[in-house]
Amino acid sequence: MKKSMGGKTMILPTPVLIVGTYDTAGKPNVMTVAWGGVCCSEPPCIAISLRRATHTYGSIIDKKAFTVHIATEAYLKECDYFGIASGRKVDKFAATGLTPVRAEFVDAPYIREFPLVFECRLLHTIEIGLHTQFIGEIVDVKIDEEVLTDDGFPDVEKMKPVAFTPGARDYYSFGKVLGKAFFMGKRVGKDRES
Amino acid sequence: MKKSMGGKTMILPTPVLIVGTYDTAGKPNVMTVAWGGVCCSEPPCIAISLRRATHTYGSIIDKKAFTVHIATEAYLKECDYFGIASGRKVDKFAATGLTPVRAEFVDAPYIREFPLVFECRLLHTIEIGLHTQFIGEIVDVKIDEEVLTDDGFPDVEKMKPVAFTPGARDYYSFGKVLGKAFFMGKRVGKDRES
Repeated sequence: MKKSMGGKTMILPTPVLIVGTYDTAGKPNVMTVAWGGVCCSEPPCIAISLRRATHTYGSIIDKKAFTVHIATEAYLKECDYFGIASGRKVDKFAATGLTPVRAEFVDAPYIREFPLVFECRLLHTIEIGLHTQFIGEIVDVKIDEEVLTDDGFPDVEKMKPVAFTPGARDYYSFGKVLGKAFFMGKRVGKDRES
Repeated sequence: MKKSMGGKTMILPTPVLIVGTYDTAGKPNVMTVAWGGVCCSEPPCIAISLRRATHTYGSIIDKKAFTVHIATEAYLKECDYFGIASGRKVDKFAATGLTPVRAEFVDAPYIREFPLVFECRLLHTIEIGLHTQFIGEIVDVKIDEEVLTDDGFPDVEKMKPVAFTPGARDYYSFGKVLGKAFFMGKRVGKDRES
């Protein structure tokens, strides 16, 4: 029996995205975002949604650029902290001892210690309600060679990315591989026809 | 050492979202979408990105409504099939034996056998490039009572939702709980100050 819950944002998993910006004074800052993900393949784009009250909001409006990092188990405590503290009051890089690096193609910083980084150029700003969505074109991806598979993809076993469940507010590790996309469903219609 | 990869959509995890629509002839259809997620808390909204060439694209434009289901391990083969076959050529409900149910609040069907469903009303259409992003307000969430925790959230152990890694194209189960958000980072700055 299905229960009606009203309008709730219980999508799972969400990613745990760490957004890097320079503020108007040039100070590097990072914040944690769960409302986001890929929104276009060509041009390759990431969407992130922020409240207007955040320090990062003004920075993106000003610089038209941001970076996105994938949270990993090794720095999960720091990633959670990035979502609690405000860059208006504290220097999150100083507080965590992590290292800001100027991005190569956009006016934003990234965290040297994080293995997978997206450099994004602001394309669209969509005011939705409590959250504003920023769509950024991915102009470059930077990845630590140690976490690349032979096929050139992020190695989940080595990188240990993190998933999130809004509502319950739990961080999860990745579990086991269940199958290949665009492959395991190939026989579904055929099975039933035979 | 970081390697520069160019513009690639290697965000992980992405969700595995099953989008339900009625086409212009009124036939229920479903397709699989990895480019999507929550994009606003108030009003609660989901964003999904589709190519214009899909059958679902025209259905959303026409009906201004869609449903979203979370893929689960029990029906993963079917979910993968929904991303391979086109509703223009086949009846995916007939091919899988799953049951279309008319949504309560919007002009779209959902899959009875899937435990977590979002009924969405189209709010915004953003043409980005190869993909068009549809932003839908979540007007209701329907969930099987058997997969609810005592706190009223989806129970990951019972529901077994699925995560995806674009590029490598692997489906993953959820692993273990790593910690609570807005909690495990609380002591980060304080640890270093002490």
